[in-house]
Amino acid sequence: MPSPVGPEIERLIQLLARLPGLGPRSARRAALHLIKKREQLLAPLAEAVRVAAERVVVCSSCGNVDTSDPCAICADARRDPSVLIVVEDVSDLWALERAAVMNARYHVLGGVLSALDGVRPEDLNLDGLVARAAAPEVKEVILALNATVDGQTTAHYITDLLSHLPVKITRLAHGVPVGGELDYLDEGTLSAAIRQRTTF
Amino acid sequence: MPSPVGPEIERLIQLLARLPGLGPRSARRAALHLIKKREQLLAPLAEAVRVAAERVVVCSSCGNVDTSDPCAICADARRDPSVLIVVEDVSDLWALERAAVMNARYHVLGGVLSALDGVRPEDLNLDGLVARAAAPEVKEVILALNATVDGQTTAHYITDLLSHLPVKITRLAHGVPVGGELDYLDEGTLSAAIRQRTTF
Repeated sequence: MPSPVGPEIERLIQLLARLPGLGPRSARRAALHLIKKREQLLAPLAEAVRVAAERVVVCSSCGNVDTSDPCAICADARRDPSVLIVVEDVSDLWALERAAVMNARYHVLGGVLSALDGVRPEDLNLDGLVARAAAPEVKEVILALNATVDGQTTAHYITDLLSHLPVKITRLAHGVPVGGELDYLDEGTLSAAIRQRTTF
Repeated sequence: MPSPVGPEIERLIQLLARLPGLGPRSARRAALHLIKKREQLLAPLAEAVRVAAERVVVCSSCGNVDTSDPCAICADARRDPSVLIVVEDVSDLWALERAAVMNARYHVLGGVLSALDGVRPEDLNLDGLVARAAAPEVKEVILALNATVDGQTTAHYITDLLSHLPVKITRLAHGVPVGGELDYLDEGTLSAAIRQRTTF
């Protein structure tokens, strides 16, 4: 079908359609919404995307994204240097930071080991992890990987990898999500919750 | 909760979250996706949004959006000047253009009359419509408004508004969508399909 819009708007729509959560129809809606709100949304978004494109970098120490290297977390002297939290992806780092329960540093692996997806140890940021875990100030490494088969396989791999170091290796508890009702849960979660039960 | 990301990334996420179809969680996903694809997506998007912010204008003749005024459709001499299609919104214009069935010009009202939403005749582009419909070359005005109560009310209002002119006023057929099966349709659509039945 012919394009009903000029090439500049078509280009914007095509790029928006590549965002997760947007397809062609919602990209058209989003583009029109932006165009109708030029001052309040389109212009500020142009600036924000430009700034991100020019200034966002990957922290060479931990794998986080920020506008500085090292990132704000690695550079934060108030962080407890004795605890290192290992995550699969920056999105997990963000999620844990929102939970605001630890004042630690992070290490982003960039994925998990996966035979199916062809992700091998050399594809992940594991050398960096070993080097950081070996630092004398690090006392505990928390493996905050997803509670999936690949996540737990990777956790075991890392445990072996760090076994020569004096660090304590811990992992997140598996169990009933807070607010969760038992009869909505799957058997895997319920058995993990029973097996990892704690003293009340 | 504290922001886990620097202000520049937070700003990008907040603006993305204001797009229709995206909420805070999908805005975070989208921002991270953009950041991970700086050359393929983030940088081109920065350029496309900038170009849109600087160059997109509303056509003063018909209400379409384009990078020129008059828009490419109004300026297209190959368009049939005797037919004027009235639509509620630019998105409807785009939809009809994708259907590529008419080679006409358009007039975008900018909405429909609505007592509930407080949209009065002066809030729509009606004066412009009357002026354009009065031009000697215009023979037919197609009211391509939504098949909603407000859409049809507005269609009747426009019919009265143009009744002093020699133009033929038509509207889109209501009925069974192409590919549609009758037992999935509502009674309103089915009765319209029966009432507006045509000779086979």
